[in-house]
Formats: sequence, C-alpha cells, structure tokens
Amino acid sequence: MTRVAIISQGEELLTGETVDTNSAWLAEQCWALGVPVVRMVTAGDARAEIVWALEATASVAGLVICTGGLGPTNDDLTVESVAAWAGVSVVQDSTALAQVVARFAARSRSMSPANTKQANMPTGAEVLENRWGTAPGFSITHSGAYVICVPGVPTEMRHMFHAHIAPLLLGSQGGDAPHLHRIRTIGVGESRLQDRLNGVDLGGAELGFRAHLPEVQVKLRFAADVHQSHREAVVAAVVAAIGRGVYTVDGGDLPTEVGLRLTAAHATVAVAESCTAGTLTAWLGGVPGASRYLIEGAVVYANAAKIRSCGVSEAAITQHGAVSEAVARQLAEGIRGRAGSTYGIGITGIAGPDGGTPEKPVGTVHIAVAGPARTDHHRFGFPGTRSQITQRAAGLALSMLLEMMG
Amino acid sequence: MTRVAIISQGEELLTGETVDTNSAWLAEQCWALGVPVVRMVTAGDARAEIVWALEATASVAGLVICTGGLGPTNDDLTVESVAAWAGVSVVQDSTALAQVVARFAARSRSMSPANTKQANMPTGAEVLENRWGTAPGFSITHSGAYVICVPGVPTEMRHMFHAHIAPLLLGSQGGDAPHLHRIRTIGVGESRLQDRLNGVDLGGAELGFRAHLPEVQVKLRFAADVHQSHREAVVAAVVAAIGRGVYTVDGGDLPTEVGLRLTAAHATVAVAESCTAGTLTAWLGGVPGASRYLIEGAVVYANAAKIRSCGVSEAAITQHGAVSEAVARQLAEGIRGRAGSTYGIGITGIAGPDGGTPEKPVGTVHIAVAGPARTDHHRFGFPGTRSQITQRAAGLALSMLLEMMG
Repeated sequence: MTRVAIISQGEELLTGETVDTNSAWLAEQCWALGVPVVRMVTAGDARAEIVWALEATASVAGLVICTGGLGPTNDDLTVESVAAWAGVSVVQDSTALAQVVARFAARSRSMSPANTKQANMPTGAEVLENRWGTAPGFSITHSGAYVICVPGVPTEMRHMFHAHIAPLLLGSQGGDAPHLHRIRTIGVGESRLQDRLNGVDLGGAELGFRAHLPEVQVKLRFAADVHQSHREAVVAAVVAAIGRGVYTVDGGDLPTEVGLRLTAAHATVAVAESCTAGTLTAWLGGVPGASRYLIEGAVVYANAAKIRSCGVSEAAITQHGAVSEAVARQLAEGIRGRAGSTYGIGITGIAGPDGGTPEKPVGTVHIAVAGPARTDHHRFGFPGTRSQITQRAAGLALSMLLEMMG
Repeated sequence: MTRVAIISQGEELLTGETVDTNSAWLAEQCWALGVPVVRMVTAGDARAEIVWALEATASVAGLVICTGGLGPTNDDLTVESVAAWAGVSVVQDSTALAQVVARFAARSRSMSPANTKQANMPTGAEVLENRWGTAPGFSITHSGAYVICVPGVPTEMRHMFHAHIAPLLLGSQGGDAPHLHRIRTIGVGESRLQDRLNGVDLGGAELGFRAHLPEVQVKLRFAADVHQSHREAVVAAVVAAIGRGVYTVDGGDLPTEVGLRLTAAHATVAVAESCTAGTLTAWLGGVPGASRYLIEGAVVYANAAKIRSCGVSEAAITQHGAVSEAVARQLAEGIRGRAGSTYGIGITGIAGPDGGTPEKPVGTVHIAVAGPARTDHHRFGFPGTRSQITQRAAGLALSMLLEMMG
C-alpha cells in the first residue's frame, strides 16, 4: 500500500504567523481513502531545508505531498529546491506558461514578470493545472518517491488534491475507494464514546474520531469491497451502542442538519439567547439559505431586554433568578410567540469566568425549546472556558430542537 | 543564538483528527523572544519515528521542544523513545511520582496503575513540574541538544512553556527579553499594509505580520537593549504610515478594546444584525464582563422582524430594499431607541453565496452606527465566502463604533 508523507513549506509557519491547517486536512483525506500518512515536516524558506524535507519524506513514503512555495516571489523556492534534490535543471515549461497566461487573461489582470517565474519547472516534471489560482503544481519521480507539489493557499490546495492527488491514491488501490461513514454526535465526550463502543463488532472497519466542539464524529472506514448491507448493519450497531447523542449518519454539521429538517417540515425558528450572546443565531444564520427558516434572534443580555423582547415576567426573574428553568421557558415561548415561528429556543446561563455561585456555578445553563405541542427544558452543567460553555450550550440547544422535531 | 526545533507527537496528527495548533503557538512565542525556530516535525505513535524526529531536530537546533506522548496509555511513547535515543534506561522517578500522586490527591481522584507510568523518566532527566495536569514534563541533554518534553494538551503545554521554557530562552540571551509591540489593524489587507510600510525606518526592529480575520497584526520586535523612547518613536512612525485602520497598539482584540472603551465611558451598546446573523453580538458577548455594556442584540433576518423589532419602515424596505443605507440607519437608530443604549449598530447585507444582483453583488454590506450626536454609515463590498464576509462586516462595524467614540 502507498504510504504518504507531507511537507509544509513556508517561513510563516516557522514564525507562527500561520497555523498549518493544510497538513491535517490532507491527512484526513488520506485516512478516508485508506492511505496512511507516516510523517509530516515543515520547512522554512531555505533551499537546504526543503531539500532536507524531501530526503526525510521520500525515504519513508511512496508519495510525498508538498504544499506551498510556488508563488512568484524570491522566497518561493519549491521549484528550484525540488530540482536540486532531483539533480535536474529548472526550465520554463511551455504548458505551464500557457496556463499562467490564460489565468491572468481570464481574470483581465496584467501579468508581472515575476508571474512568469511560476511557469518554471524542474526538467522532467509533469505540470498539474491549477484552475483555482495562478501557480500550477507539478509532480516528479525521484529516489523511489512520487513527489507532488501544490500551492499552500488552502482553497487551491484542496481543489488540487481532489483534481490531481485523490485519483492517484485511488488508482494505487485498484481504483476503488474505501467507504467512509461518519456518525456525528453531540453531548457525548470522546472517551465516553469509546467506552460505549467497547465490544461492538466493527466487522473489520477502521475506527476513528474527530472532536470539534461541540461535536464528536465517529468515523468508520470499510475496505472498498465491503458490501453495503454489511456496512449498514455495522453502522446501525454503532449508532445503537452510542444511543442518545447521534444526530446524523453521513450528514452535515448540526446547523446544516437543523436547516434541512426545518426546510423539509416547512417550519421556522426564532431564538432568544442570553449567555450564548448570539452564537446560536449566528450558527443558524451561517448556513446558506437560512433566511427560509430563521425568523429572528434576540440576544437578551440585560434583564430589561428579556422582559421587553421576550415577555419574560419580572416575577420569574425576581423569584428564580435570570438563570432558571422558568426564565428559559419564558424566553423560548416568548420569542416563539413574538416571531410567530414554529419553534422557539431560549437559553440562559452563566458562561463565566465570573458570576458563578455555589448553587449556580459557572457552566450552569438552562435551555428550553418551545414547539406547537410542548416546551422541553434541560439544565446543563458544562465544563470549560467561556467560549467552550457557549459552544456546548448552542450545540445542545440544536440537539434539543432536533429531538422535539422527532 | 539558540535555535529551536519543535516535535509534535501523536498518531491523531497523522490521521488528521487533530490540527496541530501547538507548533504555531510555540513558534510565535519563540519569535517574540527573538529565538528562531528552524524546523518542525510531526511523529506518530511509533518509537522509531520519535527517535527519527529527535535525530532530525537535535542535529539542527540547540533546543528541541517536544509536545505530546506523555499520557498514561500504551501508545504514549515519548519517555521510552527519548531514553532509547539518549541510550539510557527508563526509571521510575521519585520526584515525578510524588508530583503525580499529589495531583490526584488534590483533585480527590483515585490513581490507576497506568498513571504510575507517568512517573517514569529517562535516567538522568530533570523532571519539570506540571501544575495544570497529571503528566510531568522533563528535560534531557544529548547529542549537543537540550530536549524538553511537555504534554500535548494545549492549556498544559502553554503553562509549561511559560514556567519552564521561556525562562530558559531568556537566559540564553542574557536574561533580557526582546520588546514586542503589536499594532492591530482592521480593514486593511496584509499586502496593502506592507506597501504602506515600504520606506518606513524601522530602527532595527524585526517586522512580522499575523493575519487572523478580520484583523491583521503588525508586529515589531526590538532587541532587549533598545530604549523605550526609541521604540515609541518607531511605533508612532509605523502607526502614522498605516494611517486609518489601526485600532490599538499592544491592546486586546477588537471586542475587548470596544468593551474597555465602552466601560471607561460608562456607555452601552445594542446591535441589530441581519446578514451577520448574531456574529457581532456573539463577539461582544464573548468578552468577560460584557453584561456591563451589552444591552441587547436583535438578529432581524426576516423583513417582518426588522420592522417589528427595530421600527424599520416598510416604505424604506419597499423603496430601497432591505440591503440599503436607509434600512441600515433605521436598524441602528431603532435598536438604540428600543434598548435605550448610548450606541446602536445596524448591519444589513448579502453574505452569499446566493442573493446577489448586479447592483448589489454578494459582499455588499451596509453598516450604520447611531450615537448621541449622529449616525454614521458606510457601504462595503467585501470579498470572500459567506463566513469571511460575515467576519469582515462584524469587524468593520466595531471599527466604526470605535471611530464614533473618538
């Protein structure tokens, strides 16, 4: 089986100006295709370092993916470094030049002489067209490794991967991709998920996790020749073992799934948030087409705003406090009535770092979801920082909405 | 001068489950201290790979920082790999054991036998106390390099850096830290900033950038012995050369700065957002203590909500459209009147990907800020994705608020 290694190239990575998200993205893609990544290295803008990186990766991997260093400026050294490593000269490639010229023409932009440099290639390299930016990529074989160089701009890199690298990885496995199923969960930690999956027969599937607040994805990778009925049975067993917390299999993220469900039901939603301060509404609104179902959001930080905007009763605040089941329910029902929406969500809590008490410590969040038939309520005690508590609360609110929608 | 190299250890990095943010954070800290990072490598959970990583880094750097692999499970291999590399045995260290035992006692948690493993150290290593988690770190000298291993959990890693590594890096430079000044800007791209700084005398300062939507930081690093008056003069020259767009020198992020200014002025704010869908309110609410000045936010996605919640006139929407100067002004003034706040912010625009027209393409955003004396308005044409347009709009709205506050 092909083994992959990844080189990230750019001085901005060594100064901490840029966080390298490309490597993790590439690694996840390779994992999904069943190809192991065995090494990652980061090299700055120095030829000797890039040559070192090529040696360090080509010695352990059949395929080396190198991102970055293909720009027009003097500190873009990937082409000449690869050429030095492979012991070949740098030449202007007519195919690459035509592509660069065409890119600029299509954008009605004038080419500077520096851009001509982007048509330089190591002799013998194969040019890889980049239809998403000005710098073509290239591939070359040396020292028993196949090296593919693509731009470091994340959008261009991703397109180039799908166009030029994924087919290759598939081909190396006989052309059939493994099957990847993602079971997306909310409200269950990774270690608890692992506990619940102990003893579950995965039928030969490779298990992976990806935690990204507020959700954890459980990934199951099956070999290409595993039949659909077998995969469905394993996925069903995993979903059953996890139980509460699964919100989709192979679907989108939480706001996307909520949006699909609302759209399908011709339903609408409105949100009244206190401690989450707009985060939940921003998530809902972040989905293209959200205007079909998101009527409005009220961020009712001050008690006066809770009363004014959502009809929360002063008595409820005085008697139970602003962070209480009564206020959460009144927020949900109040915003639902005000907006005339199918569903209303109310969130009130203490995100910290200050404001906690022994009875209501930081992380206490009351969430209510009001619908046509009933209003649900939960009290949560979330761990973490202000930002983590906010994200957990917004996630669980959407999870409660999905549950009410049934 | 000391040169640093960084090893990130963990199989989750090679499968793409986790994005390595530790390396960039460490690199930025080293940059601020004037110590160059020359190489970064990522190693999976295999002893041979970790030994390779140690060789690859110790050969070019005087100090190697290794994160991860110090946990209690079998796939945590840093201790035994470092020992193998250094040619020493692994021993249970009484200092480390006492620290681990004390940690569990302090948290009233019972220790499993696996946790005892966390007291194992390479013979001759110096134990580094970890007061933020259960796994102690350690340092060892071999092959001319000083290797420091700390946990990979970001919060623990950061505390360990400040406690054990930063003092060392300072000591290697005679004990005095370089001076770092951060000029934070909004609304000006990195290449335009670079253009504006061409020809500015930086007085020997090292220039760096850090772009993080919606802001770009301009970093100036001066040697430890550069006098304050000299630094202030250079910073002033840079601020003058950048001109419009600077919102703080050495201050916090945009919502934090806005919060400080509002608090100092005993002023309050309310927000009416359409296309940004709660993002701006969430930013403001994300600052601890925001309840002092954030009265409320209205996410008025539907036209009916704009009319109902902010008193926008139906005539304005019919005549100019929901995305217009008139509606932005009415949103800002309406939410200000409704909340009784000192300032009101109104945002209406087209975040895309759909909904654009030739007159109002995707990225068109009208922002208005209403204050006691006047209402300001700007029309923007932002590039980028839905999420990028949202962040740019929220950032520029805060920048306009700061401008009105004077």
